[in-house]
Amino acid sequence: MNEAAPRPSPGVGIVVARLAERFGERLSTNPNIRAAHGRDESYHQPAAPDAVVYPETTEEVAGIVRLCAEYQVPIIPFGVGTSLEGHVAAVKGGVCVDLSRMNRILGVRSADMDATVEAGVTRKQLNEHLRDTGLFFSVDPGADATLGGMAATGASGTTTVRYGTMRENVLSLTVVMPSGEIVRTRSRARKSSAGYDLTRLMIGSEGTLGIITEVTVRLFGIPEAELTALCPFQSFAGAVETVILAIQLAIPVARIEFLDAAAAKGLAQYAKLDIPAAPTLFVDFHGSLRGVAEAAENFKAVAEERGLLAFTTATSTDERKKIWDARHGALFAALALAPGRRPVITDVCVPISQLAECIAETRADIDASGLQAPIVGHVGDGNFHCTFMIDRDDPKEVALAKGLNERLVLRALRLGGTSTGEHGVGSGKIGFLEAEHPTSLPVMRAIKVALDPLGIMNPGKIVRM
Amino acid sequence: MNEAAPRPSPGVGIVVARLAERFGERLSTNPNIRAAHGRDESYHQPAAPDAVVYPETTEEVAGIVRLCAEYQVPIIPFGVGTSLEGHVAAVKGGVCVDLSRMNRILGVRSADMDATVEAGVTRKQLNEHLRDTGLFFSVDPGADATLGGMAATGASGTTTVRYGTMRENVLSLTVVMPSGEIVRTRSRARKSSAGYDLTRLMIGSEGTLGIITEVTVRLFGIPEAELTALCPFQSFAGAVETVILAIQLAIPVARIEFLDAAAAKGLAQYAKLDIPAAPTLFVDFHGSLRGVAEAAENFKAVAEERGLLAFTTATSTDERKKIWDARHGALFAALALAPGRRPVITDVCVPISQLAECIAETRADIDASGLQAPIVGHVGDGNFHCTFMIDRDDPKEVALAKGLNERLVLRALRLGGTSTGEHGVGSGKIGFLEAEHPTSLPVMRAIKVALDPLGIMNPGKIVRM
Repeated sequence: MNEAAPRPSPGVGIVVARLAERFGERLSTNPNIRAAHGRDESYHQPAAPDAVVYPETTEEVAGIVRLCAEYQVPIIPFGVGTSLEGHVAAVKGGVCVDLSRMNRILGVRSADMDATVEAGVTRKQLNEHLRDTGLFFSVDPGADATLGGMAATGASGTTTVRYGTMRENVLSLTVVMPSGEIVRTRSRARKSSAGYDLTRLMIGSEGTLGIITEVTVRLFGIPEAELTALCPFQSFAGAVETVILAIQLAIPVARIEFLDAAAAKGLAQYAKLDIPAAPTLFVDFHGSLRGVAEAAENFKAVAEERGLLAFTTATSTDERKKIWDARHGALFAALALAPGRRPVITDVCVPISQLAECIAETRADIDASGLQAPIVGHVGDGNFHCTFMIDRDDPKEVALAKGLNERLVLRALRLGGTSTGEHGVGSGKIGFLEAEHPTSLPVMRAIKVALDPLGIMNPGKIVRM
Repeated sequence: MNEAAPRPSPGVGIVVARLAERFGERLSTNPNIRAAHGRDESYHQPAAPDAVVYPETTEEVAGIVRLCAEYQVPIIPFGVGTSLEGHVAAVKGGVCVDLSRMNRILGVRSADMDATVEAGVTRKQLNEHLRDTGLFFSVDPGADATLGGMAATGASGTTTVRYGTMRENVLSLTVVMPSGEIVRTRSRARKSSAGYDLTRLMIGSEGTLGIITEVTVRLFGIPEAELTALCPFQSFAGAVETVILAIQLAIPVARIEFLDAAAAKGLAQYAKLDIPAAPTLFVDFHGSLRGVAEAAENFKAVAEERGLLAFTTATSTDERKKIWDARHGALFAALALAPGRRPVITDVCVPISQLAECIAETRADIDASGLQAPIVGHVGDGNFHCTFMIDRDDPKEVALAKGLNERLVLRALRLGGTSTGEHGVGSGKIGFLEAEHPTSLPVMRAIKVALDPLGIMNPGKIVRM
């Protein structure tokens, strides 16, 4: 696909010249660098910014924002570019603020089980840093995203069923507002009822209300024992029923991931996992040695009555890592099965009672289209992804994938769900927000106008103005 | 104390007359009823509304709001009046919207583990309704508050350390906005990244951004086993260290409550609990039979190295109920120890590493004042309450209590905490918000102005306009 030509903002030339003066080599207008900052991992149309700037402090970010505000130049925050709905495309041109140099870990408080990091720190970097503390940061979207980006998109992942999304794991944010003011949203206290919850308002705001520059997150103690079970089922309904019952019975699962037969087949081939091409649950149990053994037993008993075909467990770090690396590599497995094709990844979430129906209808729709598309899901949360493997240069396949995605989103909404469980709105889902939030979208718009009256913060994302 | 005379709003007469026409006996201007609706359980100055109206549907609430907006008459939502910071005082007069007739349970979805209720349903009512489902609603602030009120104040309580506050337990809200528009904030999906998090913005907004009329909450499976342990300690530092270590070690506590020696003494006398007058932890473990036994053992081992004096456990429903009723009756125990006096209840929350220092300084400050004031706390969250037992008609004692409270709040802020962990701002903490949120208060104000440009929603609470 071609890069969309950025529409010049009046004043952008002056702003870029001033930033070049101020930031020297930390301001780039190199076309390749600009292009790389205008695209994420999605199939949406990229759009390069006019320049990329690399601030090193919150104060520098504030200075950039004040300058851009003065000339009404758009600002697009950038982490590592792993977003999936066109979040970073500079659809109106402007300045990309790349936070990768703000990658310091500012503090780890073991007694409080929290850490404060700059927005450019990635989740693997933080967990590496925590290695000797007995603590870990739990949110795991697969990609090694930055914590600023994860907060901005409201990320979650495989461990959410036990440890929560970014919403439950961020205690406080430092945000540069569209005016250039620096705001600390909250103290580090575990609970607070002191005024409006600006922390959660900023989480998932995708750079449209301000730039997150520091993040304080909760940490958890590394459990004494972890056990992973691979559970293929006769039918996919049996797998889903098992998930529902396990959660109702309060069997403490830390992860519970679903792969349909197509996805399981891909992983068996690509990652050499010994699983049949059947609907499969990957389940993790975290706790004491006795606790995880008991939970696994209880889970197995529930699953056996619902068509469990096998129950393979792993407890060593190496075996477990192999399994979860394979799960996170589901995308690569899918790619390996469809050489030359590229993925279009979807993301809906429904009440878990509607999950079987939603997945079955979706599977039938995919099969009728002729496209290949394995399905994987964080089924404990009712969240699942299809990955359509297409030739992105073939307009017919792109149209097929878009049609499938649109029907999938409308199906999820009809079943009481949401157009996006964790990837966010970006530009890709903006057209569905009216259908999902017919009553609350005007409220979102009022907040956007109140906080960003010039409309310079990541325009064209979340709310259309 | 005298009731503050409500300052008449222009147009309030017309609005009350119109509401009387529309609502008949469901509109009251009876002085006693008005007075009862202008006060909560706090020591703050009450202020009666001009009238109290009892809607039965969301549409009726919307009609009331539209009428009040037309004449710029203040609106104060009311649940059962158990708030603690003057939330319901009609400081500018206006119409109190009493939601007690909106007490229908609209739906319980067992497979999804959620329930939708009208705002006037109380937490005990919901749990009674859930009795045969194997599920329960977890948030427990002590008082039998309405779910609408609990959402509006961002309530939490003894079980928060395991199950979260209202913020983690509300999936979706129906809200009548200051314009009279009815907004549903979100679907019932467990996760969503579809736009700004209006659900969390409304939670803790205390009726200043709209009236919550329906609440959809998460439910949890009732655990197989529950075990309560009473743990008196030699020193209060030993108790706090035990809490920190237990959480770091991921020992699964479901409740972990602290009572200082004064509070323990009160409970021993008033509730006939067999505990010494020593700093004491009340701990709950929820899980499988083997799981709770193991967790209790592990907890005891940690506590024994830190001056544990005894470890009394209870597993039967009756024994456990006696203990937790006693804990929730700590206020009555304090009252029984100080006949004729009435409570002034404080509420701060600090990072747990600062808890020992914060409580010790506070204890010393109280002792120097000569007032009686037991301390109880949700220590797993760093949240604690002192209850000053005073003669509210004695200006000297009121001043002493206010001084202690002010120093306590400033101490909590100095130690990186918050002026309110769970009671909210109301009018009582409004003066501290500037100190706590010097940078984010202007953002809160911008949101208030954007959503309630007429300033009619519960004026005088959270943000000063």
